Amino acid sequence: MAKEGADMTEETQFMIDTNPGKEPEHVESSGDAKEMRAVVLAGFGGLNKLRVTKKAMPEPQDGEVKIRVKACGLNFLDLMVRQGSIDNPPKLPIVPGFECSGIVESVGENTAGFEIGDRVMAFVNYNAWAEVVCTPADFVYKMPEEMSFAEAAAFSLNFVAAYMMLFEVANLREGMSVLVHSAGGGVGQAVAQLCSTVPNVTVFGIASCSKHAAIRDSVTHLFDRNVDYMQEVQKISPEGVDIVLDCLCGENTAKGLTLLRPLGTYILYGASNMVTGETKSFFSFAKSWWQVEKVNPIKLYEENKVIAGFSLLNLLFKHGKCNLVKSVMDKLLCLFDQKKIKPVVDSLWALEEVKEAMQRIHDRGNVGKLILDVEKSPTPLMASDSTETSEAGEEEEEPEGDNDSKERMPFIH
Amino acid sequence: MAKEGADMTEETQFMIDTNPGKEPEHVESSGDAKEMRAVVLAGFGGLNKLRVTKKAMPEPQDGEVKIRVKACGLNFLDLMVRQGSIDNPPKLPIVPGFECSGIVESVGENTAGFEIGDRVMAFVNYNAWAEVVCTPADFVYKMPEEMSFAEAAAFSLNFVAAYMMLFEVANLREGMSVLVHSAGGGVGQAVAQLCSTVPNVTVFGIASCSKHAAIRDSVTHLFDRNVDYMQEVQKISPEGVDIVLDCLCGENTAKGLTLLRPLGTYILYGASNMVTGETKSFFSFAKSWWQVEKVNPIKLYEENKVIAGFSLLNLLFKHGKCNLVKSVMDKLLCLFDQKKIKPVVDSLWALEEVKEAMQRIHDRGNVGKLILDVEKSPTPLMASDSTETSEAGEEEEEPEGDNDSKERMPFIH
Repeated sequence: MAKEGADMTEETQFMIDTNPGKEPEHVESSGDAKEMRAVVLAGFGGLNKLRVTKKAMPEPQDGEVKIRVKACGLNFLDLMVRQGSIDNPPKLPIVPGFECSGIVESVGENTAGFEIGDRVMAFVNYNAWAEVVCTPADFVYKMPEEMSFAEAAAFSLNFVAAYMMLFEVANLREGMSVLVHSAGGGVGQAVAQLCSTVPNVTVFGIASCSKHAAIRDSVTHLFDRNVDYMQEVQKISPEGVDIVLDCLCGENTAKGLTLLRPLGTYILYGASNMVTGETKSFFSFAKSWWQVEKVNPIKLYEENKVIAGFSLLNLLFKHGKCNLVKSVMDKLLCLFDQKKIKPVVDSLWALEEVKEAMQRIHDRGNVGKLILDVEKSPTPLMASDSTETSEAGEEEEEPEGDNDSKERMPFIH
Repeated sequence: MAKEGADMTEETQFMIDTNPGKEPEHVESSGDAKEMRAVVLAGFGGLNKLRVTKKAMPEPQDGEVKIRVKACGLNFLDLMVRQGSIDNPPKLPIVPGFECSGIVESVGENTAGFEIGDRVMAFVNYNAWAEVVCTPADFVYKMPEEMSFAEAAAFSLNFVAAYMMLFEVANLREGMSVLVHSAGGGVGQAVAQLCSTVPNVTVFGIASCSKHAAIRDSVTHLFDRNVDYMQEVQKISPEGVDIVLDCLCGENTAKGLTLLRPLGTYILYGASNMVTGETKSFFSFAKSWWQVEKVNPIKLYEENKVIAGFSLLNLLFKHGKCNLVKSVMDKLLCLFDQKKIKPVVDSLWALEEVKEAMQRIHDRGNVGKLILDVEKSPTPLMASDSTETSEAGEEEEEPEGDNDSKERMPFIH
């Protein structure tokens, strides 16, 4: 931990310098009991912007639950947050992370439904990647006994998103067909499992070749992401598909709409193609906004097609749909109890290994979900690697002024 | 009928002159049994382009049903066809009309499910406004005993469209809210009735003031089409509505999307605002295509919204979804049997009164459906009016070159 201590001081200094209006971090806190380890994002950019540091431990406010975190989910969106490639990026520094599992340590006033010691999983509006998290009880769900903490951290976001897209936004029914990009990812695997709960559903999956062996059984037809998937799908199903789930955006939007059958639904639930690989991409969201192809409502009318957008985090934290999400979670936990669905965990990483974990998503190495295991010690080799190697996305040596004009390999989900 | 005979000759002459490649109409047919009366559209434009004439009676092909027509439905789309304001307008001359009811007179080879004498209602890809119609058995449905021919002609298109939009495209459920334009029209009244079959659904209806007394009980909140309906809806329901059904297009698309709650669905099912009132509007469809506001998929993602287009006629005649429509019709006939829905007939018109009927839609005079009653004789006064008066849309006296540049009152649904 000595290394982390040194990092912390440097990081703190950086944050105070560039955020004069912010309160200084409580690095010199009086007692250990009020501090916690957390991953902190100090600036938008490469992996080097992430540090594990100590922070003041939060206390639950009215209606909140305080959770001793056991495991956190890592999503592609966390990469986009790190790069600042999302709409309304957060004020920095911030603790990233939108979901975790753990044990209830205390509850705030007027917080009903939870007791100390409850095993729970939760959505958090940032701040998940820490030893302790406080979040409104509306976003907290009790875990089934048979579910591990790692599984729980892999469950919430991916399965709720997959379920709501398939059954709330689209209307998946017997005999339909579904095309899913990033079939090997957390959402992709959740989609495949949920499709298997409906009779006679055909799943077209697109994934990197390296994942094909691992996920071949989860989908009906599997394509390499480097082939012309439109042509491949049309060969098998000339009339197209009923549902397209797209986390890439860009040219895939037009392709997805073209592939739809009449009354079919295209759902955009991410824009990972918008990440161009620059470490400083404050403007990439605005750029992508203008670059994505707009849709003419009259064309939808002529073709009897549906286009939808789905952002679970906005639904929860901006649109106040926590009751609906709660009802979806109840249905999903029934399916879990019936052993019809089971989260796929790719790998566990210590908080200090967050850079390696992000690199793995960047390299498209994962099958299923990457989990930050808060109680895990970093693997010695990897811990030393993390500061020695220069990965894609790690650009400490390069002058910042160059970054904006550089085009590097895009991150791909 | 002497007048019609004179019209017929003139019309036939016109059609032969301007369509040299076409077969001449069989006006001098050998026997009365092989002729029928039909409404013919000879050119795109005003009401004067419609004539009742005699045509050769069609005979059923393989898989077709020959229907002795009793009643036909008149839709706003028929006005747009008359003006040529639709995509891919038909080659003229043509018999307009997309739906009818009547009695099976014969069936073609390989036609299963129907017998001579069956009371039926049917979709037709044009040609409905005639004494006899042939259409594939896939588009024909047996009528309930309790349903009149006028009701049947008012039933098919409006109720199937309303049902599919509410329950297939959107997913209307208990407690939701629906905004419907043209609430007094055939689809609007079908939407209101179908919403009442689901508990606790709030219907916001927009209609001309003159219809309010007649339809007030069918919706929860009724607004005049001349008020700022966005403001009125937001006063009552600040969070917006779950489903918007829009047959107008234009600025209403952006308004409808704005009014949607998260996970709400906007459905465009017509573009009657695109009718600008010119009698020669061959280019109005192309113009409207470019004028309508395009939708950014990323905006849908951020806002968790859904936009859909719905065209029942394309679904039937281009997209081959007759089995799905059949299953919807079965459900609707159950609801009819249970007396939960009942088509609203505005008025009955003789074929010879088609101009007056169209004028009534144009003048927003109808509550519910206008029906062409094939066996009805024209009301003497109206029959004489139809050739003497000069209505909006009737521009025989005006030089054609002026029409394109003129802006007249738009037709409003």
